[in-house]
Amino acid sequence: MSEPTKEPTAEETKTEEQFFDDEGKPISKKAYKKLQKEKEKAERKAATAAKLAAEKAERESKNVDISSDRYGKLPINQSKERPGVKYEDITTINGSRAGETVTVRVRVQTSRATGGKMCFFVFRQGVATIQGIITADEEKISKQMVKFCVGITPESIVLVEGKIVKPVEEVKSCTISCAELAIEKIHIVSDVQVRLAFTLDDASRAESAFEEDAQLVRVNLDTRLNNRVLDLRTTTNHAIFRLQSAVCLLFREFLIERGFMEIHTPKLIAAASEGGANVFKVSYFKSSAFLAQSPQLYKQMCIAADFGKVFEIAPVFRAEDSNTHRHMTEFMGLDMEMAFNEHYHEVLEVLEDLFVYIFTNLKNRFKDEIETVKRQYHFEDFEFLPKTLRLKFSEGVQMLREAGVEIDDFEDLSTANERLLGKLVKEKYHTDFYVLDKFPLAVRPFYTMPDPNNPGYSNSYDFFMRGEEILSGAQRIHDAELLTERAKLHEVDLSTIQPYIDAFKIGAPPHAGGGIGLERVVMLYLGLGNIRRSSLFPRDPKRLEP
Amino acid sequence: MSEPTKEPTAEETKTEEQFFDDEGKPISKKAYKKLQKEKEKAERKAATAAKLAAEKAERESKNVDISSDRYGKLPINQSKERPGVKYEDITTINGSRAGETVTVRVRVQTSRATGGKMCFFVFRQGVATIQGIITADEEKISKQMVKFCVGITPESIVLVEGKIVKPVEEVKSCTISCAELAIEKIHIVSDVQVRLAFTLDDASRAESAFEEDAQLVRVNLDTRLNNRVLDLRTTTNHAIFRLQSAVCLLFREFLIERGFMEIHTPKLIAAASEGGANVFKVSYFKSSAFLAQSPQLYKQMCIAADFGKVFEIAPVFRAEDSNTHRHMTEFMGLDMEMAFNEHYHEVLEVLEDLFVYIFTNLKNRFKDEIETVKRQYHFEDFEFLPKTLRLKFSEGVQMLREAGVEIDDFEDLSTANERLLGKLVKEKYHTDFYVLDKFPLAVRPFYTMPDPNNPGYSNSYDFFMRGEEILSGAQRIHDAELLTERAKLHEVDLSTIQPYIDAFKIGAPPHAGGGIGLERVVMLYLGLGNIRRSSLFPRDPKRLEP
Repeated sequence: MSEPTKEPTAEETKTEEQFFDDEGKPISKKAYKKLQKEKEKAERKAATAAKLAAEKAERESKNVDISSDRYGKLPINQSKERPGVKYEDITTINGSRAGETVTVRVRVQTSRATGGKMCFFVFRQGVATIQGIITADEEKISKQMVKFCVGITPESIVLVEGKIVKPVEEVKSCTISCAELAIEKIHIVSDVQVRLAFTLDDASRAESAFEEDAQLVRVNLDTRLNNRVLDLRTTTNHAIFRLQSAVCLLFREFLIERGFMEIHTPKLIAAASEGGANVFKVSYFKSSAFLAQSPQLYKQMCIAADFGKVFEIAPVFRAEDSNTHRHMTEFMGLDMEMAFNEHYHEVLEVLEDLFVYIFTNLKNRFKDEIETVKRQYHFEDFEFLPKTLRLKFSEGVQMLREAGVEIDDFEDLSTANERLLGKLVKEKYHTDFYVLDKFPLAVRPFYTMPDPNNPGYSNSYDFFMRGEEILSGAQRIHDAELLTERAKLHEVDLSTIQPYIDAFKIGAPPHAGGGIGLERVVMLYLGLGNIRRSSLFPRDPKRLEP
Repeated sequence: MSEPTKEPTAEETKTEEQFFDDEGKPISKKAYKKLQKEKEKAERKAATAAKLAAEKAERESKNVDISSDRYGKLPINQSKERPGVKYEDITTINGSRAGETVTVRVRVQTSRATGGKMCFFVFRQGVATIQGIITADEEKISKQMVKFCVGITPESIVLVEGKIVKPVEEVKSCTISCAELAIEKIHIVSDVQVRLAFTLDDASRAESAFEEDAQLVRVNLDTRLNNRVLDLRTTTNHAIFRLQSAVCLLFREFLIERGFMEIHTPKLIAAASEGGANVFKVSYFKSSAFLAQSPQLYKQMCIAADFGKVFEIAPVFRAEDSNTHRHMTEFMGLDMEMAFNEHYHEVLEVLEDLFVYIFTNLKNRFKDEIETVKRQYHFEDFEFLPKTLRLKFSEGVQMLREAGVEIDDFEDLSTANERLLGKLVKEKYHTDFYVLDKFPLAVRPFYTMPDPNNPGYSNSYDFFMRGEEILSGAQRIHDAELLTERAKLHEVDLSTIQPYIDAFKIGAPPHAGGGIGLERVVMLYLGLGNIRRSSLFPRDPKRLEP
């Protein structure tokens, strides 16, 4: 078949290959080809856009969401399956991992929407925070998904799949500043069903900030304690309780290394053995029991049983109606007791070394936690000497007198005098930690060994941090006869301490020890100002909840 | 002046030197000299003997004792001075140190006089014993001193200076068999002022000995517990409580290594939160409080506060009127709680690994203590698998049915069935330790997560040692709504657990955990047969003392 004859076009009539742009101007072959390519690209793009628009229109008519499998609320995790997805710790995320896709489970600390197409998050995991960003696009992230993100209430727990991205500039508001997460999937694991009592930002604000801006919301201590679970989520509280945990760890490390043995003595006791007034009474079947005010008598009985060196970490209970910054009705006692050979100073030295060990290792091994607390509650670094300062009680009295205080030789130190003496000691010796030895006998418990060289004094000591007592201890009387005599003098009902006295009738070595108040050590080391800040769920005469 | 002329003697008239013995017989010069020396020696000896006899006669007439500064009772040690004498640990004494003079402070376990001139001691220091001997002589050790030794009552504490001697044959009755102490000085530090309730020998006797000799004095458990300080001095008890201390040490080592944090939760609580029947009531100022039956609710609140992985070692209190071999009203709970990612088996695996760690390290690091206990209370070595056997509850029920037990699918295991199942498991799988998973929902506490796949079951587990339960745990409900629903079903008064439920209204991750009974672990590992043997000062409905 022959083709029909046609009039040649302008192009065809060209003798040499000539090229023109869309406006008919002649151009080079190269420029022409480029132009053609651009045209094709534009056409393809338009076609895609048309297709997407058509799909979108169709979806919208059917209410379909391109991101529907990328967000939502998960059912309660009942351990139905175990797919084995790796959950990353956000502290492992940094700029060098940019491009990697990771799965993390985090708390939403804050979120901030911008213009309906983006949402910024601060995600928190323990004490670490990282920025998360979601941006609506046409392919994966729908506006619905961004809207969902904006609606997530702070403190909800979310499971996020995202790409690690290097931010244009450092994210100063997060602990991880050189990486952020571009969110690709986000699902709520557990959401917040109530109005929060306060925001974590308000609860975490530095004390100094209030000086600059009096308008800021201050979360007072009672509100914190009433909502303690929320309050405990602040990075400051995480650090405080990591440090509390650390003090116990270091206490044990030091003592176990020196051959001490851990004991567990009963908290339910038959009689109010250390003075009846401050003891809680318990209904015990058809009778009554009491709560131990300390492991004192029992740890000594372990010494009479030849355990030699013992320690215990356990709650102690005090039914004192004291509503002060440093008293609780239940607190943790770190107790130790030790038989010695010649002199109770052998034990005193162990206790002094113990504290130097604790302070040194807190400083070296828990620097981050200390710095975290300092950001909120500003305090001076805790000062201590490599060889602990030990003063006699009488020397302390002398220092107070020189400072103008009227005080008797055998008078116990008032809280105010303790503080003042702490201040005087700090000025003179540059230490926040020191020991007062040889207290007056009359102000110590009945089981305290009298000083054989100085009548009226005793072989007893207190330890102080920033001018507050954190340890009380002494050589104990290990002779049943002298013990009975002293108990009678103190008007202790002998029938309530019979098993204790009996323990010394079958022979006991000379021994000494001490009891440390854990929460006081943490409070004073960190300058927290109130012991309730260093107790997870503090108990005082007015508080039994949460 | 000239000398008077004398008749020459026989000797002088000898032209050559000649020597004679005492009988006039001629002997060599050498023999003669030897003879002279012997004569001189005998004379000196006689002179000394005469002198000693004269001194002795004088002493006796004046009642003087050559050993008077070598023995006696010391005044009560009130730390009057600190001479710096080195006190040796008797475990450092052995045959290679023979000849050294050492100072030790020891308990007199037994003493035995022979013929008025000698006395043998068994001295004890913790779990070690060594023989001591004193023999009267003319120079240092008087008969009075030996008499004093014979009179020292067992269980007195003495300060001994003595020479290390290699015994002629091994001292089989002491832990230190290749060295003994020749006593040169002995002073009583603390003596026994009462008749002992029993001897340490009677209290330490192997159970098997009674089978051979029914006449032997058996110290029953109540007598032991009534005189607990004396009872605790046996090497067996020292070993038991070293092992109890070790279980805590290993529990912490394992968990701290895995990033767990130690917490201290309150024991005084506002309401009887875990079922009202078994809780002790406390007078709390003008109101009442209760003693926590476990740290359950509080450790979960720490998870809601994002602590992630927590543990606590603390007393728990149960007001159950159970008078059995395995119940106490106060015992030590080793608790842990942990947020998981996908499935509660992540936590179950940590717990299984924890026990394998504890068992392996007890065996490797505390072999001596285990052997010491075994000598008194014979038991089979504890068998466990490197990968813990985990059975479903329904599989356990099936095994019991195959053994002829009639049991419903959803019925809890009775103590008898637990024991039988333990026996069946041991026969089939050769392990004293295994896990039962997926208990019926109805027999578990209200906060237990239901199994999503098998109605009527739950995500909960018990651990068993030698057929007795030592850990109970589960995935907990982390959703406030489901928790409320389940609490209502269990007829729990919601007002008593409000702070707990509120903790889950502000978001909480899925989590699981468990609580271990410390004394049960020790009792069952060592086959002690009664939990009171693994508690320092046990508490039950009938015992609050000592």
